[in-house]
Amino acid sequence: MEKTIGVGMIGYAFMGRAHSNGWRQVGHFFDLPMKPVMKTICGRNKAAVTAAAKTMGWEKAETDWMKMINDPQIQVVDICTPGNEHKPMALAALKAGKHVVCEKPLANTLAEAKEMAQAAKEAGVRTLTAFNYRRVPAIALAKQMIEQGLLGTIYHWRAVYLQDWIIDPKFPLVWRLKKEVAGSGPHGDLNAHITDLARYLVGEITEVVGMGKTFIKTRPVQEALADGGLGAKAGTKKGKVTVEDAMLFLAKFANGALGSFEATRFAAGRKNFNSFEINGSKGSIVFNLERLNELQYFNRRDDANLQGFRTILCNEGGQPYNSAWWPSGHIIGWEHTFTHEFKDFIEAIAAKKDTMPNFEDGVKTQAVLEAVMASADKKKWVKVTI
Amino acid sequence: MEKTIGVGMIGYAFMGRAHSNGWRQVGHFFDLPMKPVMKTICGRNKAAVTAAAKTMGWEKAETDWMKMINDPQIQVVDICTPGNEHKPMALAALKAGKHVVCEKPLANTLAEAKEMAQAAKEAGVRTLTAFNYRRVPAIALAKQMIEQGLLGTIYHWRAVYLQDWIIDPKFPLVWRLKKEVAGSGPHGDLNAHITDLARYLVGEITEVVGMGKTFIKTRPVQEALADGGLGAKAGTKKGKVTVEDAMLFLAKFANGALGSFEATRFAAGRKNFNSFEINGSKGSIVFNLERLNELQYFNRRDDANLQGFRTILCNEGGQPYNSAWWPSGHIIGWEHTFTHEFKDFIEAIAAKKDTMPNFEDGVKTQAVLEAVMASADKKKWVKVTI
Amino acid sequence: MEKTIGVGMIGYAFMGRAHSNGWRQVGHFFDLPMKPVMKTICGRNKAAVTAAAKTMGWEKAETDWMKMINDPQIQVVDICTPGNEHKPMALAALKAGKHVVCEKPLANTLAEAKEMAQAAKEAGVRTLTAFNYRRVPAIALAKQMIEQGLLGTIYHWRAVYLQDWIIDPKFPLVWRLKKEVAGSGPHGDLNAHITDLARYLVGEITEVVGMGKTFIKTRPVQEALADGGLGAKAGTKKGKVTVEDAMLFLAKFANGALGSFEATRFAAGRKNFNSFEINGSKGSIVFNLERLNELQYFNRRDDANLQGFRTILCNEGGQPYNSAWWPSGHIIGWEHTFTHEFKDFIEAIAAKKDTMPNFEDGVKTQAVLEAVMASADKKKWVKVTI
Amino acid sequence: MEKTIGVGMIGYAFMGRAHSNGWRQVGHFFDLPMKPVMKTICGRNKAAVTAAAKTMGWEKAETDWMKMINDPQIQVVDICTPGNEHKPMALAALKAGKHVVCEKPLANTLAEAKEMAQAAKEAGVRTLTAFNYRRVPAIALAKQMIEQGLLGTIYHWRAVYLQDWIIDPKFPLVWRLKKEVAGSGPHGDLNAHITDLARYLVGEITEVVGMGKTFIKTRPVQEALADGGLGAKAGTKKGKVTVEDAMLFLAKFANGALGSFEATRFAAGRKNFNSFEINGSKGSIVFNLERLNELQYFNRRDDANLQGFRTILCNEGGQPYNSAWWPSGHIIGWEHTFTHEFKDFIEAIAAKKDTMPNFEDGVKTQAVLEAVMASADKKKWVKVTI
Repeated sequence: MEKTIGVGMIGYAFMGRAHSNGWRQVGHFFDLPMKPVMKTICGRNKAAVTAAAKTMGWEKAETDWMKMINDPQIQVVDICTPGNEHKPMALAALKAGKHVVCEKPLANTLAEAKEMAQAAKEAGVRTLTAFNYRRVPAIALAKQMIEQGLLGTIYHWRAVYLQDWIIDPKFPLVWRLKKEVAGSGPHGDLNAHITDLARYLVGEITEVVGMGKTFIKTRPVQEALADGGLGAKAGTKKGKVTVEDAMLFLAKFANGALGSFEATRFAAGRKNFNSFEINGSKGSIVFNLERLNELQYFNRRDDANLQGFRTILCNEGGQPYNSAWWPSGHIIGWEHTFTHEFKDFIEAIAAKKDTMPNFEDGVKTQAVLEAVMASADKKKWVKVTI
Repeated sequence: MEKTIGVGMIGYAFMGRAHSNGWRQVGHFFDLPMKPVMKTICGRNKAAVTAAAKTMGWEKAETDWMKMINDPQIQVVDICTPGNEHKPMALAALKAGKHVVCEKPLANTLAEAKEMAQAAKEAGVRTLTAFNYRRVPAIALAKQMIEQGLLGTIYHWRAVYLQDWIIDPKFPLVWRLKKEVAGSGPHGDLNAHITDLARYLVGEITEVVGMGKTFIKTRPVQEALADGGLGAKAGTKKGKVTVEDAMLFLAKFANGALGSFEATRFAAGRKNFNSFEINGSKGSIVFNLERLNELQYFNRRDDANLQGFRTILCNEGGQPYNSAWWPSGHIIGWEHTFTHEFKDFIEAIAAKKDTMPNFEDGVKTQAVLEAVMASADKKKWVKVTI
Repeated sequence: MEKTIGVGMIGYAFMGRAHSNGWRQVGHFFDLPMKPVMKTICGRNKAAVTAAAKTMGWEKAETDWMKMINDPQIQVVDICTPGNEHKPMALAALKAGKHVVCEKPLANTLAEAKEMAQAAKEAGVRTLTAFNYRRVPAIALAKQMIEQGLLGTIYHWRAVYLQDWIIDPKFPLVWRLKKEVAGSGPHGDLNAHITDLARYLVGEITEVVGMGKTFIKTRPVQEALADGGLGAKAGTKKGKVTVEDAMLFLAKFANGALGSFEATRFAAGRKNFNSFEINGSKGSIVFNLERLNELQYFNRRDDANLQGFRTILCNEGGQPYNSAWWPSGHIIGWEHTFTHEFKDFIEAIAAKKDTMPNFEDGVKTQAVLEAVMASADKKKWVKVTI
Repeated sequence: MEKTIGVGMIGYAFMGRAHSNGWRQVGHFFDLPMKPVMKTICGRNKAAVTAAAKTMGWEKAETDWMKMINDPQIQVVDICTPGNEHKPMALAALKAGKHVVCEKPLANTLAEAKEMAQAAKEAGVRTLTAFNYRRVPAIALAKQMIEQGLLGTIYHWRAVYLQDWIIDPKFPLVWRLKKEVAGSGPHGDLNAHITDLARYLVGEITEVVGMGKTFIKTRPVQEALADGGLGAKAGTKKGKVTVEDAMLFLAKFANGALGSFEATRFAAGRKNFNSFEINGSKGSIVFNLERLNELQYFNRRDDANLQGFRTILCNEGGQPYNSAWWPSGHIIGWEHTFTHEFKDFIEAIAAKKDTMPNFEDGVKTQAVLEAVMASADKKKWVKVTI
């Protein structure tokens, strides 16, 4: 008889929708050691979470997340709530002996993140900080290439994560613009991603200097927060934006490479422009999430007169994750970063060995983010410490 | 109580996998008038189809497609088999009063296609010829733009569909290279798509002249045909390739536009390069399936010194089909052309009114394809007639 | 003492300006066996040609081209006039024993072109049909690559030359729209270029089928023709356009490759889009004149998971013509196709051996163009014969 | 009679070659108030400078620059030497009452630059700091767009200038790698350019924080320095690299915008990748010098579903400088940044009014560069002061 594993999820907004899709699809494309069963989805609003359960394919809706965590049918708890709720939920789930997936950034502070990682260590379960972009096939391929030495010594990491969804001053004061809920603005939301990727692909960061800015200081208060959706209607009352609109930083890597990072929600025309370039002694690679099926690669060993950046279309069966999908050139979507994440996590559970990035990894990224925040506050270079 | 509709599918290779995914996903993203229930999947090989049913999410596996067609729980029959099997299956399904989805091209000959369309008309059910690319959001947007007059009078249609999967002479003699099964080579496989798109976006074609060629005339016979998969191992015995490797044609449209079409499986480096350009009196658009989330648009009414082709990233909620998906810039995959197709088909069933392209439409595309074949055979211009 | 060679040129409009620049610059970048001296420029309008001489750097202006041809100080005659004037001028120059550069297409008819080539043969001088795009460094590199076998057996040639400068129906009836002057429309103007490139890169063409169309049948008559400039003002009287607005054709190459060609002046947004793709058994290349410093190259022998079209930035010193220019990445302009042309032509004169494409070559291209015209007229396939 | 102006130039390596071309060409494309006459070129090596004079089109070669400066036939002195020689030459020329063009950066230190600007002010002549990229048509167009308010309030400036010509550790210790000659590495060479552009397009910079690094600390000593050429042969002896290999910095603009800058010579595959992006409240623009005929533009006022970055092909007659050149789509080369520079400078001389960027402007850029150097040395934020 087929082995199964029960999954419970908290949150049903953007990330909840994306995670649900991942859980729903993973078994249809990958041959898994255990079949995930979508047991329960939790949310505060009874009607909304009931509707979400139906649409997204969960067996049951629940308003009390603690009850769900303690349900013996649930072995995996997947936390898709804003950052300020990660710690209590994760600690409860770990205490209950559940494997835990937690959205990024792991927490709103380094201290919270460390507490979570410590609890995970003690619980002896599997954890995953859901930095989903490690599982874009093109990025997984980049990782392989770097490990094979194709880039040689790495000199430069250069990354931006640009969006423009709040560029209109009339865009309302959603939860992502409130420090007490989101922890930070694009720093925790977007720099978190490119910092995680930098650590994954290049290595640990030792020292940073950053600057941030809030361009639009007050915004219309939302009439109803509902699910934190971006399209929420705005009233006439204004409230204060308590997170930054943009955050940039320079970084030094332990291996000698130099890095630059930038996250903003004010780059007109950039929708989901998570793009990085790595320059090494033997070659370079470039990635852009808006064309996530492609990886640019420059190989210094190509014939002298025929060198150039090549666009690798990353839908070849021999590339990471791609044997599961369609023939060459039939591109896949953003959503499958989660499908791949859950594949690896389920295999990790079966193997009783963490996959990356676990909570420990989440802590390390958090330490960088927090050093940048301190740097921006104090206007000076700050060493990264955990 | 929610209304449901039972679906049965024949074939479980590439297209079967893609259609299954569409049926599985459509209800999770779109609010449908009827919920599709994946009842039965049919195939010749008992073990293989049973495994496929489980992986792809079908309730039941079946080796006798006629039995499935006559199952009263099935209201929709979805035909994903090679072209030579379309007619008998479709006729049986129509006779049984089922709604029918049929993979493209509708049939291997115009005569067969006409017979199918006639039967559909008599049956009074809904039919769909599965030219899925009409439902790429970027292409649906292009259609809207043309209907709104943004391109003005159309002068040119220029399309290629380039692949390279059989460029290696050691690639085996799979079913797609046999005329008796596939009907033709890239002509029916790829030109069928761009012909359908030309008809959809520009209008009817009146006259054509074409040429085709088989570059590699014999290939290793496959040891086991299994599911017609492309990676099949090859033996030492060689057999004759009975379809063309490439087919090009020029066309005249009823509205005065000029068209060029090319399909080949010998374009090294082109994996799924279905690309077209339309030039009109007011502007132009360009599309490429390898970057299916993008549409290039040139608008002659932009400020004189600031004109240029712009890359519309087609993940905006206001664009066709996109309100169902993710925020701006979170791209979707090739697979959702089917999700969109089934959304529209289910709505058509509920509305008791055909969506496009129905079997009649399939016949019209078939007539163009057949005229091109005749033109290539006879080395002369041929008028398109039905 | 330095050896010199006297140059005389006829015509001072667009091509005259471009050729003047080439003659003026070639000696400053290339180490030539003879220094070209810009002696005389000819034109009908005394005042205009005098002004042109000064602006463009010619020693003398002349209204009688026959006089210039017979000037003993002139060794090279460069013909930059409309097609209907090529023959008398070339024959006179050849008769006078001068080396001759002639703008493309060589003549307005094959018969004229043959007469010119015959005269050249008898004169024993150097001739050049000014198909300047053979000297784009990226295209010269492509030629090298093909000769080295990097593309293997060539299966496909696919070229378009798209412009939009007459898309506005109010654009006047300039000389290029009159058959008696220009011979044809974009066919002789643009298809001539891509036909020459096809012959250069792929080989001879044996058979063609084409179609053409004039979308806008009458246009405002020009008030003053002046230099045939494109920006001329238009009056209210209308005249008939006697050339095609677009011409497409399919072609078979002697070596078995299949070709498609298209030239139009009605492709909104395409300014000088001379683009071709060649697919061979070992790789592919793609070129676009609007980015003439780049060549796309796909190499099937790259590592299986790392294949892709690479953009070769063609400003490397080791590539054809490039040692004369700037450091890597400092791109050059369209104008230097002429600089390169004259470098090779001067070297050919010194070596007493034709460079390509000579008048003989011009005849072969003309034969293809004429076959296409015949094909479009008769609506049938036509064999290319000289 | 035509008015002329005598030009003398010092230096005949890369920049000397480029400037010579500019002086040679400017009068053939632009209608100037005074015709520049290329009188004298100066260099230390008699034979080499004599050869250069002939190749590059100068009337006379000279080894004593002071003599040339004092020649009454010379009205413009153009300084194309390494940074450590700018001050004495410029001061001498200014003292002699000559108009002065000086290569960038204006000097190796801010103090020197200020002394030069002060002398210029007192001399009352025209000066030009040769930041040639302000005269790329696409960048001049960008400036126009910003002045017209098309970008609205500017939030972000993001620029890199990436090259890879010294990535090979065997590349020799040329003068550009020696602090006493070059002043700095890519900072003065490349960051100078993007800093000047940032000031031109966005505004003044008030505060910076930077970091630099020398990846390869020793290199083979050159056998003969000759003209400082990049291809020089290398011996076995090694010497110390005394400039940085890469320099990055963050910046705050007076108008509230945030900036990031990076210059490196270790970005494998990047040849002359001077690229910037500006994000404003109404739109964005992107430029890349390797495709200098193009400007990307995103306009937030385009129709909601049809927005996207458009590629403006900057060869339209109505755009800055372009009426002088070829028809649409016929691209120009890097070299004409100098042609445009000298056009404007000659007009400035005739008008007796400085064009930009004069020496004062050069000082302001120098102040930013020096603040960055100080910041990198001291590892802290530094305010920009003059």
